[in-house]
Amino acid sequence: PCNLTGWWENELGSRMQVTTVDGEGNFFGEYHTAVSSAEKPIQPSPLIGSQHLDEDGQCTFGFTVNWKKFSDSTAVFVGQCFAREGEEEVLQTSWLLREKVDSLPSDWKATR
Amino acid sequence: PCNLTGWWENELGSRMQVTTVDGEGNFFGEYHTAVSSAEKPIQPSPLIGSQHLDEDGQCTFGFTVNWKKFSDSTAVFVGQCFAREGEEEVLQTSWLLREKVDSLPSDWKATR
Amino acid sequence: PCNLTGWWENELGSRMQVTTVDGEGNFFGEYHTAVSSAEKPIQPSPLIGSQHLDEDGQCTFGFTVNWKKFSDSTAVFVGQCFAREGEEEVLQTSWLLREKVDSLPSDWKATR
Amino acid sequence: PCNLTGWWENELGSRMQVTTVDGEGNFFGEYHTAVSSAEKPIQPSPLIGSQHLDEDGQCTFGFTVNWKKFSDSTAVFVGQCFAREGEEEVLQTSWLLREKVDSLPSDWKATR
Repeated sequence: PCNLTGWWENELGSRMQVTTVDGEGNFFGEYHTAVSSAEKPIQPSPLIGSQHLDEDGQCTFGFTVNWKKFSDSTAVFVGQCFAREGEEEVLQTSWLLREKVDSLPSDWKATR
Repeated sequence: PCNLTGWWENELGSRMQVTTVDGEGNFFGEYHTAVSSAEKPIQPSPLIGSQHLDEDGQCTFGFTVNWKKFSDSTAVFVGQCFAREGEEEVLQTSWLLREKVDSLPSDWKATR
Repeated sequence: PCNLTGWWENELGSRMQVTTVDGEGNFFGEYHTAVSSAEKPIQPSPLIGSQHLDEDGQCTFGFTVNWKKFSDSTAVFVGQCFAREGEEEVLQTSWLLREKVDSLPSDWKATR
Repeated sequence: PCNLTGWWENELGSRMQVTTVDGEGNFFGEYHTAVSSAEKPIQPSPLIGSQHLDEDGQCTFGFTVNWKKFSDSTAVFVGQCFAREGEEEVLQTSWLLREKVDSLPSDWKATR
């Protein structure tokens, strides 16, 4: 079946390590982003999420990265694992980044 | 500070219960969606996420809902808490829903 | 059938005027945004788009707003008209805002 | 400066032809999509949009594709042109696809 445990790298050079997946599909790890719009220097950031445990290896999953070590933003990623015959597994993901804004009238621009 | 513990309801009638927030800001709970594009009947679904612990009560947060009890999809939500003087707190969120697709060429349409 | 001609206002106080819809469904008008992340003062901005011409009044549509008078950004909106019995028509829309970035490595953060 | 006139192809094999850009930056053309979630066979579809006319060749733009020839959906694309020294220009775009839904309660799932 699908298992997200291990290291993954995206096309921007960001890397993530999923250290453990439990029996419910919950997982934990660390996200090393290569890009940032924060002013403070980037630091590895904790991630927490959940995956399906389908037998076909094509499970969907989602996770949250809390950038608290250098930013007051939070990101979420959602995607699917694709097992390709004779090739490495690939993850396809989409993401949203929420930046902290001062007040409700600024809410419209807080998410990218 | 911000604390997501408790019951929250959105404008579609979906409700979520955050049962615990730990010292790192990780939280757990259950999401009761009012809407679904799955064929099987809706069931309460586990959620797992992370929030900032800012003193000003305006923290950003994110969480994943694993619909495994009735669907092979996964959703992620990202948002911010707004504490309003003399009023109830309100959460502003955005979401992405990942549906399982058969193969990489169908990936373009998997996320809404 | 559906016809977008006229004035529309959203919940943020932004207003748009669609002046003409031609026989192909192409339309033109002006968007008066109430919110902006640009430094220069807001100005009414040209919009150009296209709508379906379904008989049931529930057509989908899309349009582009070029903010050139005060910004180098561009926004797109996509949505659907809902005709409600005995009530005013309502438009439901989603949008993306593209900000200009210096180079390809910054592309990841250009869209909200 | 930037000029979108001509043929463009994306990584999915979809192609678009921008036939004319006028002095305001408005443009027109045809989109030949390689992918579809509609039941009817794909057909070339009219596009209409607007671009900035910045001198640096890195303009942002947006356009609407009306799929009326085989679907009641509408798509919008927003992006930026990147002129790379000694290389071909590349367009980076994001998109939203609006599908027609029966009623307001189904609005939440109409956009991908």
